Amino acid sequence: MKLMIRYKAIIAYDGTNFSGFQRQINARTVQEELEKTLTKMAGQAIIVHGSGRTDAGVHALGQVIHFDFPHARDLEKMRFALDTQSPEDIAVIKVERVSSEFHARYDVIEKTYEYRLQIQKPRSPFRRHYAAYYAYPLSIEKIEQALPDFLGTHDFTSFCATGSSVEDKVRTVYEASLRYDQENGDLVFTFRGDGFLYKMIRIMVGTLLKIGNDRMPVDAIPKIIAAKNRQLAGPTAHPEGLYLKEVKYAPVSE
Amino acid sequence: MKLMIRYKAIIAYDGTNFSGFQRQINARTVQEELEKTLTKMAGQAIIVHGSGRTDAGVHALGQVIHFDFPHARDLEKMRFALDTQSPEDIAVIKVERVSSEFHARYDVIEKTYEYRLQIQKPRSPFRRHYAAYYAYPLSIEKIEQALPDFLGTHDFTSFCATGSSVEDKVRTVYEASLRYDQENGDLVFTFRGDGFLYKMIRIMVGTLLKIGNDRMPVDAIPKIIAAKNRQLAGPTAHPEGLYLKEVKYAPVSE
Repeated sequence: MKLMIRYKAIIAYDGTNFSGFQRQINARTVQEELEKTLTKMAGQAIIVHGSGRTDAGVHALGQVIHFDFPHARDLEKMRFALDTQSPEDIAVIKVERVSSEFHARYDVIEKTYEYRLQIQKPRSPFRRHYAAYYAYPLSIEKIEQALPDFLGTHDFTSFCATGSSVEDKVRTVYEASLRYDQENGDLVFTFRGDGFLYKMIRIMVGTLLKIGNDRMPVDAIPKIIAAKNRQLAGPTAHPEGLYLKEVKYAPVSE
Repeated sequence: MKLMIRYKAIIAYDGTNFSGFQRQINARTVQEELEKTLTKMAGQAIIVHGSGRTDAGVHALGQVIHFDFPHARDLEKMRFALDTQSPEDIAVIKVERVSSEFHARYDVIEKTYEYRLQIQKPRSPFRRHYAAYYAYPLSIEKIEQALPDFLGTHDFTSFCATGSSVEDKVRTVYEASLRYDQENGDLVFTFRGDGFLYKMIRIMVGTLLKIGNDRMPVDAIPKIIAAKNRQLAGPTAHPEGLYLKEVKYAPVSE
């Protein structure tokens, strides 16, 4: 039996034509495409582990994966081969060798997501797969007033899609902010935390849009969090606005 | 016979899934999609005239069209109907009533194009249809040094695709500049002039890339212009980087 070497890679993908990250029957997924490429490169079956799944239509700028590979290879050659042999809607940004203890999912200490939204008329044909669209009046001021209510450590049951099997719904949000990307005309929400529940970011955005559209009071969020009831939060915002931007791990001790 | 009213419209389109602007047999074009929508709206055949054609894969942020329509309609209602009834890769930004003398092609006094280029590794999966990619070393300094050589009034025969039926190849270039769009990681060339020949911008960019890659001297452009020989200029750069940004007309005299 060959000695396997563990690699960590940072990848980006355009989620438009994927049924999400995670392998599933009869659907095109990022995990399966990467596994096909790596299996061809290795000449034996390779399994890819991601930092977490992303849903259909959701994008990644900095998803992290790990996999075990049977040969030691030059890292830039490995990155180049994996990048160019994968479909063009996946890019491989960086490849590193890591200890065989490293796990892309279990070792995460922080994740950052962006949510991009267009509000101008008409909807830009260039952003239709890369930002969500909101056609109704929106008070940016009210959204900015409500955003800090997500900060800190809370039980986010109200912001977790029903059906999630995760038991501990306590998460810590470090950043919840809004900026304007003039070049693309996108409003950009940034959420950074120690982890997020299933569809949590999209439900947070759906709730903020209700507040911005005056269909929910600006101080609603603390009450929704306290109630631990998904029914009280806003709807799940569309997937095309969501980007997994960065995944952080604890520094490796020698 | 009904009195026809002439409308001018500013439209944007994602050129990725079009075989260009101009109507042709057995191909999806912007002109045909707009004509189908307008014909349905009017209940009679409507012809669309554009400021000029764009090639397959080329985008528009501000293409201008005109058409004659049988009813006077509220302009915002007309814009909204045309926008929402057209495919989602076409957006209708503005609709105006114009005199029956106005012609979207013959009355143009100035056009602005952008050409977007990515040079970082790996190629971004998000920009693959929206910016060209150049994988080789490039001196931005040399490109910036060469750009002003396009300014002014010249016979641009060397920068016109062979086969063009236009006889007068003299054009005036008012602006030839380069900036960096940090948000998307694109180098953005801007070219503004009284008009451009067939594939002229893409041949100009192909030539600038040869200069930036040191395969052509930095002072080559005036000599290429003087020679009036397409063979001396660089290759035609890929269509996905090109955007028709703005079309200007003389102010209307009362």
